[in-house]
Amino acid sequence: MKTLLIISHPDRLGSASQQYLKDSLPQTDQVTVHHLETIYPEGVIDVKAEQTLLQAHDRILLQFPFYWYQAPALLKEWQDQVLSEHFAYGANGDKLKGKELGLVMVIGAAEKEYQVGGREGFTISALTTPFQALAKKTQMQFLKPFLIFQFQYMREKEKMQLLISYQQYLTVRNFDSLKAKEAWYLEKLQQIKTTEENRFVLDQIEDMIHETRENIDEIQMYLDGNL
Amino acid sequence: MKTLLIISHPDRLGSASQQYLKDSLPQTDQVTVHHLETIYPEGVIDVKAEQTLLQAHDRILLQFPFYWYQAPALLKEWQDQVLSEHFAYGANGDKLKGKELGLVMVIGAAEKEYQVGGREGFTISALTTPFQALAKKTQMQFLKPFLIFQFQYMREKEKMQLLISYQQYLTVRNFDSLKAKEAWYLEKLQQIKTTEENRFVLDQIEDMIHETRENIDEIQMYLDGNL
Repeated sequence: MKTLLIISHPDRLGSASQQYLKDSLPQTDQVTVHHLETIYPEGVIDVKAEQTLLQAHDRILLQFPFYWYQAPALLKEWQDQVLSEHFAYGANGDKLKGKELGLVMVIGAAEKEYQVGGREGFTISALTTPFQALAKKTQMQFLKPFLIFQFQYMREKEKMQLLISYQQYLTVRNFDSLKAKEAWYLEKLQQIKTTEENRFVLDQIEDMIHETRENIDEIQMYLDGNL
Repeated sequence: MKTLLIISHPDRLGSASQQYLKDSLPQTDQVTVHHLETIYPEGVIDVKAEQTLLQAHDRILLQFPFYWYQAPALLKEWQDQVLSEHFAYGANGDKLKGKELGLVMVIGAAEKEYQVGGREGFTISALTTPFQALAKKTQMQFLKPFLIFQFQYMREKEKMQLLISYQQYLTVRNFDSLKAKEAWYLEKLQQIKTTEENRFVLDQIEDMIHETRENIDEIQMYLDGNL
């Protein structure tokens, strides 16, 4: 699976959260990072190049700060220019069909404010309706958004958790399933370079994860009536 | 009541609907027309000037084509720049409090597509949630949006009706009440220059409208239990 991470931020360098996400990027050629403001400082978008890029990837992620509950100006311009008729919708406009569309949004207010009675008053699900409609129109599958609330107040451990979830959101199919997360952790376990003694411990942990998974699968089959 | 009509359209001249709306503008100094792309061809917004303009008006209307269910890039840039902290929200950020916020949206698809099962799949009320949240955050009163569906298929009579409703949306308090519309028509009746004979007819019509209104008010008072 190839992921295209389209970032739009008018001041990416000056944003602590964006820099943290940048440092968290997985080291893999399966993820293409594409910061619009860097590539198009004059705001003139190369539509053909963007469309080619989109077609070469399976998961399209839009990453931006959630200013005024919408995408930044350049990302909106990108939408209007790149997602054109006969490409993204309309007659023969099925070039994005079947791809995944996800949002990585950095949000200044607290999660609890995004509900009735909260200070923001509307849910993220409601506020992202335009993107859901876009996914529907372009026949893309809309993923659960990846939401980062109040990065400035996160503790180190929460940030580490964020880093891991972010890497999974970028690279793992069915990133939200326990099974997929297990597979990701197992892969990471293998990559850790350590002493022979520690290696033995890590291998034991790996065996344990496999065993737990077998147990869960067995219970699931029983519940499904296949056992 | 002073109205600020903020228009954002990358190609206003090339848009038949925008040109029709332009020709429909009421001749009054109570409405300020402000086309962002004309004023800021380089996209660099004069924040102070915009904030001064906002404060001098009571009804703020955003007029734009509903591309990808959101505002065009320059209008989004305007939101991010002009609606700043300590002006539009946050500490002492009450400069827009009590003003009205309305949307004038030109929409290519048919109205019936904006519902579950429709081709667009989402209602206009759901898709405009970001603007409703913006109004809440800035303590503005969100007006019923003024929606123009499929201008290209409108017949002459529908366009005339559009012209009248548009003028009312721009200038009439409680533009949606029958009473307010009556007052608007009465004013227009007075302004029509015609022969003495026709004038007499128009005056008779005016009397009739007044009489009908008195009847309605009387029935309303009776229903309210005040008579």
